Amino acid sequence: MDYLFARRIKSTRRSVIREILKLASSQDIISLAGGLPSPDLFPVAELKEACIKVLENHGREALQYSSTEGYWPLREYIAERYRAKKGIDVTPEEILITNGSQQGVDLLARVFLDEGDQVLVERPGYLGALHAFSLYRPTYQTVTLHEEGVDVQALERILAHNTVKFFYGVPNFQNPSGISYSEENRKQVAAILKGHPMLYVEDDPYGELRFVGKALPSMRHYLGEQAALLGSFSKTVAPAFRLGWVCAETGIMEKLVIAKQACDLHADYFAQRVVYQYLADNDLDSHIAEIREVYKRHRDAMIEMIQKYLPEGIEYTQPEGGMFIWLTLPEGTSSLELLKAAVQKGVSFVPGGPFFADGGGERHFRLSFSYVNEETIEEGIKRLAMAVEELCG
Amino acid sequence: MDYLFARRIKSTRRSVIREILKLASSQDIISLAGGLPSPDLFPVAELKEACIKVLENHGREALQYSSTEGYWPLREYIAERYRAKKGIDVTPEEILITNGSQQGVDLLARVFLDEGDQVLVERPGYLGALHAFSLYRPTYQTVTLHEEGVDVQALERILAHNTVKFFYGVPNFQNPSGISYSEENRKQVAAILKGHPMLYVEDDPYGELRFVGKALPSMRHYLGEQAALLGSFSKTVAPAFRLGWVCAETGIMEKLVIAKQACDLHADYFAQRVVYQYLADNDLDSHIAEIREVYKRHRDAMIEMIQKYLPEGIEYTQPEGGMFIWLTLPEGTSSLELLKAAVQKGVSFVPGGPFFADGGGERHFRLSFSYVNEETIEEGIKRLAMAVEELCG
Repeated sequence: MDYLFARRIKSTRRSVIREILKLASSQDIISLAGGLPSPDLFPVAELKEACIKVLENHGREALQYSSTEGYWPLREYIAERYRAKKGIDVTPEEILITNGSQQGVDLLARVFLDEGDQVLVERPGYLGALHAFSLYRPTYQTVTLHEEGVDVQALERILAHNTVKFFYGVPNFQNPSGISYSEENRKQVAAILKGHPMLYVEDDPYGELRFVGKALPSMRHYLGEQAALLGSFSKTVAPAFRLGWVCAETGIMEKLVIAKQACDLHADYFAQRVVYQYLADNDLDSHIAEIREVYKRHRDAMIEMIQKYLPEGIEYTQPEGGMFIWLTLPEGTSSLELLKAAVQKGVSFVPGGPFFADGGGERHFRLSFSYVNEETIEEGIKRLAMAVEELCG
Repeated sequence: MDYLFARRIKSTRRSVIREILKLASSQDIISLAGGLPSPDLFPVAELKEACIKVLENHGREALQYSSTEGYWPLREYIAERYRAKKGIDVTPEEILITNGSQQGVDLLARVFLDEGDQVLVERPGYLGALHAFSLYRPTYQTVTLHEEGVDVQALERILAHNTVKFFYGVPNFQNPSGISYSEENRKQVAAILKGHPMLYVEDDPYGELRFVGKALPSMRHYLGEQAALLGSFSKTVAPAFRLGWVCAETGIMEKLVIAKQACDLHADYFAQRVVYQYLADNDLDSHIAEIREVYKRHRDAMIEMIQKYLPEGIEYTQPEGGMFIWLTLPEGTSSLELLKAAVQKGVSFVPGGPFFADGGGERHFRLSFSYVNEETIEEGIKRLAMAVEELCG
């Protein structure tokens, strides 16, 4: 039957990352592609205790429908952690629990974007966000990320000539580039944004996973309510629950709640209770310290192996945290071609193209070091080097 | 700051049901409003066993990211149950696991509806679906439900003069009316739809909760792939997990998966594993038999109390299953006015207006009998009778 699909879906393709993930999971290849946390670090026993406690003490309530906004004590916990860790003043009323921060991205787009509206993203930008935005058929403006963060001159120029609904960015250990905005860059970006009736959407799934250097202020610190924050328990507790949040001033929250109601009524309430119980009974900071230590070892190993096996002329970032390294091939080389060779050699990664909302990026690619151990990293980079050898001669 | 919200969200309000639910939970009033399952029937101990088993045997895998489509054995279970219970031929590949069937409604709208497109709904129609559709700014066509189901002459007339993307309906114990399509009505509706390039979306959250009479064929039985099915574990296992599904032919599935990826990557994978474990280790049919027995007692009690306490001239449906009874006040009376009086007397319900996509419905209201026990039902209907007395004299 010849169904008449909506325009938004006709022009949107499956996420390249997730298609590659499928490929990687079905074959005997080392995946440096997907941004999966290391399952060795999941607090399985503690979560089992939390499940038992929630079901034994509050089972009938914890299995019922609940409010769209989310479990109040969990919202309090998040607000309190913002105060304690970042020194920013956020109330529980400003927190909406979402199905991962991906749903936060989608809900913000749903609330702000009419077809053709302009949205500003980083170049390269987070693929999942671009995928979410694309279904609203916006016009993209892009601003390049360099080593210190956002190209502020370009930002100023873009905002002088365009009405942008919001600027979506990842200031800490960005996906895919691993870049963090410097403190100076944050100030400059905030100063520029302040003059415009638009939102900065600060997505910060990796912020707590810093290995080196000191934590830098949230954009919210400079922008106040002009910044909406996205957060997630996927990288600090476990991704399966799909628990994240949006933090936004109450006028925006009101709209986000309407949109969330229409989408799916509320996030998994049992999962909210279990994660809250886990957080109440355990020291998240010491758990995160463990994650940092392991990921730092993985990152160090990957950089060492890149230096050891990959030829000169391939550039790479040295992220201070997070899960990703971003590599740049020499001029005239395609990372998509490299991927084809790499899969033959038994290793996968994510090519750069899809991270560029306005095209380009063919020379770049992303490696993830979170999921793989040091031994696998060495073998993976060896295989990658063989693929590079084959492609570039 | 004067943010520029999208058109879709400016014109959409919070769900009336959920706002009333909030009111009801914060005050000392008997709620006959929300469609909550009875928590006494939640299989708490069995779900605890399932959580323990999943975490002990598959913890690290069950806490990781997963595929957008959902957990394969759960999709197989659903397909097999369609075959066993309804005799319809569905493959696991046609099943997408969603965050409750509410997300299934949203995803179908996302895939099919451009602004201004026509969508056909029942009159009255399920409020949650109307809320989801409204964010896509469609044009509504409505077809009245009578005792036997859809008004087929009206259906024929509407389809002769309009291009409708899909017809969303609830053929079993509809929310809010409690009405079921008769077997003859199903055949007639299917015969009319067959000539048109459109989908029938069969939402069936209550289908298994039949107290009297025999189960009737799914619309899929008559329509084949022209019918997409929505299902849910909220009424048979527990709502907190937000686990439901869409079943649609593979061409539509492909689009739904793209939309689901953009929304939130995938449904809670831990919840999928736990619910599957529960289903594998327990007899769902005997659990459902218990739910049916309890809800039948509740329904019988409510009808008895309506007959005992409410004055002549108030009409009510006698549903063969599900969770709802639909009442109609005499001409010239408003159920919204009645609600105000009822809340004063200490009882709440859902007024009819919001269930009518094109306005009207002021004389109707919905009572839910699932959550409340017989004693509470008697007290609730007594209070309602006092409110009616006050309003109608």
